[in-house]
Amino acid sequence: MKKFTTVEEMEYDSKRLKETACAVCIDTWETRAENQKNHCKFGEGGICCRICSMGPCRITPKAPKGICGADAAAIAGRNYLRSIVGGAAAHSDHGREIAYVLATASRDGAYQIKDEQKCISMAKEFDIETDGRDIYDIAHELGNKALLEYGKPFGTLTFLNRATKERQETWARNKIAPRSIDRECTEAMHMTHMGNTADATALIRQGLRTSLADGWGGSMMGTDFSDVLFGTPKPVNTEANLGVLDKDKVNIIVHGHDPALSEMIVLAAQMPEYTKRAQELGAKGINIVGLCCTSNEVAMRHGIPMAGNFLQQENAVLTGAVELIVADVQCIFPALGPLSKCFHTHFVTTSPKAVIPDSEFILFEPQNALENAKKIVSMAVENFVNRNNDLVFIPERKEKATVGYSCEAIIEELDGVTNSHVDLTGTYKPLIECLKSGVLRGAVGIVGCNNPRVRPDYSHISAMKELIKNDILVVVTGCSAQAAAKAGLLDKEARELCGDGLKRVCELVDIPPVLHMGSCVDISRIVLLASKVAEQWGIRIDQLPVIGCAPEWMSEKAVAIANYVVSTGLDTYLGIEPQVNGSDQMMQLITEGTRDMVGAGFVINTDIEKLTRAMIDGIEAKRAALGI
Amino acid sequence: MKKFTTVEEMEYDSKRLKETACAVCIDTWETRAENQKNHCKFGEGGICCRICSMGPCRITPKAPKGICGADAAAIAGRNYLRSIVGGAAAHSDHGREIAYVLATASRDGAYQIKDEQKCISMAKEFDIETDGRDIYDIAHELGNKALLEYGKPFGTLTFLNRATKERQETWARNKIAPRSIDRECTEAMHMTHMGNTADATALIRQGLRTSLADGWGGSMMGTDFSDVLFGTPKPVNTEANLGVLDKDKVNIIVHGHDPALSEMIVLAAQMPEYTKRAQELGAKGINIVGLCCTSNEVAMRHGIPMAGNFLQQENAVLTGAVELIVADVQCIFPALGPLSKCFHTHFVTTSPKAVIPDSEFILFEPQNALENAKKIVSMAVENFVNRNNDLVFIPERKEKATVGYSCEAIIEELDGVTNSHVDLTGTYKPLIECLKSGVLRGAVGIVGCNNPRVRPDYSHISAMKELIKNDILVVVTGCSAQAAAKAGLLDKEARELCGDGLKRVCELVDIPPVLHMGSCVDISRIVLLASKVAEQWGIRIDQLPVIGCAPEWMSEKAVAIANYVVSTGLDTYLGIEPQVNGSDQMMQLITEGTRDMVGAGFVINTDIEKLTRAMIDGIEAKRAALGI
Repeated sequence: MKKFTTVEEMEYDSKRLKETACAVCIDTWETRAENQKNHCKFGEGGICCRICSMGPCRITPKAPKGICGADAAAIAGRNYLRSIVGGAAAHSDHGREIAYVLATASRDGAYQIKDEQKCISMAKEFDIETDGRDIYDIAHELGNKALLEYGKPFGTLTFLNRATKERQETWARNKIAPRSIDRECTEAMHMTHMGNTADATALIRQGLRTSLADGWGGSMMGTDFSDVLFGTPKPVNTEANLGVLDKDKVNIIVHGHDPALSEMIVLAAQMPEYTKRAQELGAKGINIVGLCCTSNEVAMRHGIPMAGNFLQQENAVLTGAVELIVADVQCIFPALGPLSKCFHTHFVTTSPKAVIPDSEFILFEPQNALENAKKIVSMAVENFVNRNNDLVFIPERKEKATVGYSCEAIIEELDGVTNSHVDLTGTYKPLIECLKSGVLRGAVGIVGCNNPRVRPDYSHISAMKELIKNDILVVVTGCSAQAAAKAGLLDKEARELCGDGLKRVCELVDIPPVLHMGSCVDISRIVLLASKVAEQWGIRIDQLPVIGCAPEWMSEKAVAIANYVVSTGLDTYLGIEPQVNGSDQMMQLITEGTRDMVGAGFVINTDIEKLTRAMIDGIEAKRAALGI
Repeated sequence: MKKFTTVEEMEYDSKRLKETACAVCIDTWETRAENQKNHCKFGEGGICCRICSMGPCRITPKAPKGICGADAAAIAGRNYLRSIVGGAAAHSDHGREIAYVLATASRDGAYQIKDEQKCISMAKEFDIETDGRDIYDIAHELGNKALLEYGKPFGTLTFLNRATKERQETWARNKIAPRSIDRECTEAMHMTHMGNTADATALIRQGLRTSLADGWGGSMMGTDFSDVLFGTPKPVNTEANLGVLDKDKVNIIVHGHDPALSEMIVLAAQMPEYTKRAQELGAKGINIVGLCCTSNEVAMRHGIPMAGNFLQQENAVLTGAVELIVADVQCIFPALGPLSKCFHTHFVTTSPKAVIPDSEFILFEPQNALENAKKIVSMAVENFVNRNNDLVFIPERKEKATVGYSCEAIIEELDGVTNSHVDLTGTYKPLIECLKSGVLRGAVGIVGCNNPRVRPDYSHISAMKELIKNDILVVVTGCSAQAAAKAGLLDKEARELCGDGLKRVCELVDIPPVLHMGSCVDISRIVLLASKVAEQWGIRIDQLPVIGCAPEWMSEKAVAIANYVVSTGLDTYLGIEPQVNGSDQMMQLITEGTRDMVGAGFVINTDIEKLTRAMIDGIEAKRAALGI
């Protein structure tokens, strides 16, 4: 069996790169995390209120209420709801940007329609006339209608219709069907303003609603419009870990989230003039690699190698071999500013939503996209000669990975093992049969970030290994996907690590046991997949032996995601505690209380072995309840 | 000269009511504020980051950066922007509710059009055809178009056109002209998400933009649509302070902000059946009084007495003579829940946005508004017999007040002193002439909350007294207006406290020296007033000897207000420090940095005497610069 990269090996490489950090006298997250210990217990427990300037107020036995009378549950609940807003706003604003791009795409422009079929099918969902119309006319109307999903004054989100009938009824009954996306965010901010909602259940309910505006709204638009514009992902081979940097080439890192930027950089970098210029300057060519979710986006559409995930962003620059790192939004360490100054590395920011000191700001807009992308690629190429080779150290390790399992791609793979004379193609039936028969025991969507509170990547990787060993299929997105990639788990050879059942499935369908479904907005793919499986199986979604897991989550986006996954009916297992444990009522609500509303809740354990055991037990309990 | 109520006398009454609190074993804000001392310095300084679960991170000399690398400016700036979002969301969501009411108003329904002229004039601003149309058709189209201001995907807010040309250009040049209201809120939440904007200037800029979405968007709609539906305020006499409660009557308190609720309660309480029933139960009738901004709303439209402001809400219940307190949104102490349980008092909440434990929730919606108002009034009446007279103590003190100086009302008053043979009527010219000549030195809008960080009401009242003594006209809204009312400063007799110039103006125009302009959303009236004065004067708004002041602010709404007042070009004097002082850069930006963008900034001093001196000096400096 092949030797898979271990977390210890990854840590060894990180440690070596920290020597470079020492040499250039710059801190990294490890030192900053050490300096930030110990964290404030009031903040960790969610019971510090800074919502008005009478405070801050903190809940203690001596002071069980804030000045206004808000108790622990009100304070933790409001903070929690605001974190959901932060996450939903981030994802949805990403979706909005893509919708604007769609609304201005043109046949001869930088942004074109790549998946016409998906465009037409989405247009139909929005009741847009498609017969005999130019695809760009359709796309523009679709973009404009989609933009109204953010602010239409009446009705609920269009994509809610994609959910199972039972879910739609559940959301309506609980009054958590989101109206327009921005309205839910704004109303949640209002509810949590001083002197408004102090009832934890009401706060949780608005949290579910706001999260649904993300998962079945902004994120889903982010995903689907990206597919329309840049192509719906299909399995493609790539590589992962810092070894994908090439010391002989001009290395450009695309970092952030929105493919509208990275697609243009990729396009520009392929233009022969830049390669030629790079060669003139002594490089063997141009090497584009990705970081964070942008990496997932370009990997699954172009096979661009993945340099790493969230806590790897400083490591990438520390190799000393990066000519330019260009970022758009989200999860960009401000630390990259001063860090890049220690090297020749250009750190380019491009979005007015992520303006970062010590970066070079180049405003990126649809109308100047390709032009600016060319400028950025050129900056990188010209920078090659400034590299200080004394500082260059690129760890060699990398793993093979097959990425890009969109729902459409999964169905295509399943069609390959369907006897089209006997069975319908274009369904999840083969997967359902495997689940029913027990060849597969269940499926887990493992998603989310890295967090220094736990050993980075370890929780992701160890959970995945244990689950696939137990014949549980794993689907991944975001930083979790990259942890999997770095550990070789997206390599088809990883089937050797599986139990007999999953191994057979992987062989038959020719897939890795851990399926890469995209970036963090693409968790919308996972909830759609689960919804369709439930529908085709004929059971409720919360009955499926399918769950979510965020073992190392850190961002507000993850809080929004966890809530929409739960609202969709899937139990979600968290390896980091949501910061509400200063209120027993809030802890009860997020673990049990939501079950009465939406049939699912959180299971929390910071011990990854125990959390994994709980996932397996949870799946088996779902199976037992189904009598399978 | 009449004897005006002093702060000492108000404090004496409060102290007496605390004896009742002791007797029923309940805490009040004084005890809770004492228990919350000392406040966390990281929170007070804005340099505690809880935006992701890697933290909380706190800036110290040992740890100058958060784990992601965010420094003090980034952290304080993000927290500050989020507080603006909280405030803008609250006001704007209030405006949205009124817009929904407008969109469904009907000639025979509970909500009717009271100011047809204003409705038509606003419709024209929205390019709505008005000729020959039924006023309700116009209102419905206006409501629907207004609702789109929250979410339209293109363009900027319609009401920006009301500002001076110079302001519109300033906003456009600085890229702070707000697009749709909810979008600015959502985008600001995105910008402050982990890994996005870490540049304090960019955060401040989005703060100005979001605040403008409040002041020239949501708040302005809240004000104007309320006028359309419930009548544009005109001067009306009322009374203020707890002495307005009547021990022989059924006392109902309307509390909160949105007149859509309070107007219905007032309407229902006037129905003879309830007075009759009250009399059957031994009461002499029904007495409706107001608290907080709702009080301003019903006082200026119906002369309903004002029981008090923010920190008086518990006192009102502690009189033991309140049968029912009904609230909608904002500034409602959760403490009212347990407090009301110590008495016979019904505490009724009505909005899904302000669900509060230990309250009785009655959902209030346009379609059931009058019906539910009747139900609530009936609950109060039936509750009269449950009053425990042993607990009843109502302080007798109250003051006369003339309230309701909308812009339209001010112009009407000014027309009264205009020689219509010589001068145009319908303008602010007489006011401008007084300012130019120096009879009036300037004007200050004093607004905002109470805050236990300073002696409640003292800052408001002492600043007002000093300003009017110096011939500076004061206009007030919100809790500040009620502080003024309780101190007798809204009584026309308060002209005796003025300098000679202001006194003469008050006599001539027959106004008090402190003009009540409404509730906190009505600060939109103040910015419109200042804009029109600048326009008619022919100078830039930031040149006017006119400033804003929030001496005791506490809520996020106040942060949003302060920012839109500054964005409008008026210096704003704060008696409570914004919680950003852990970052020198942020302190510089809010006091000086914004001057480069919008020509105004904050002046901060927690010593009210010094702050007042600074205001007078500031006004005199503006005069000197104008050469007047």
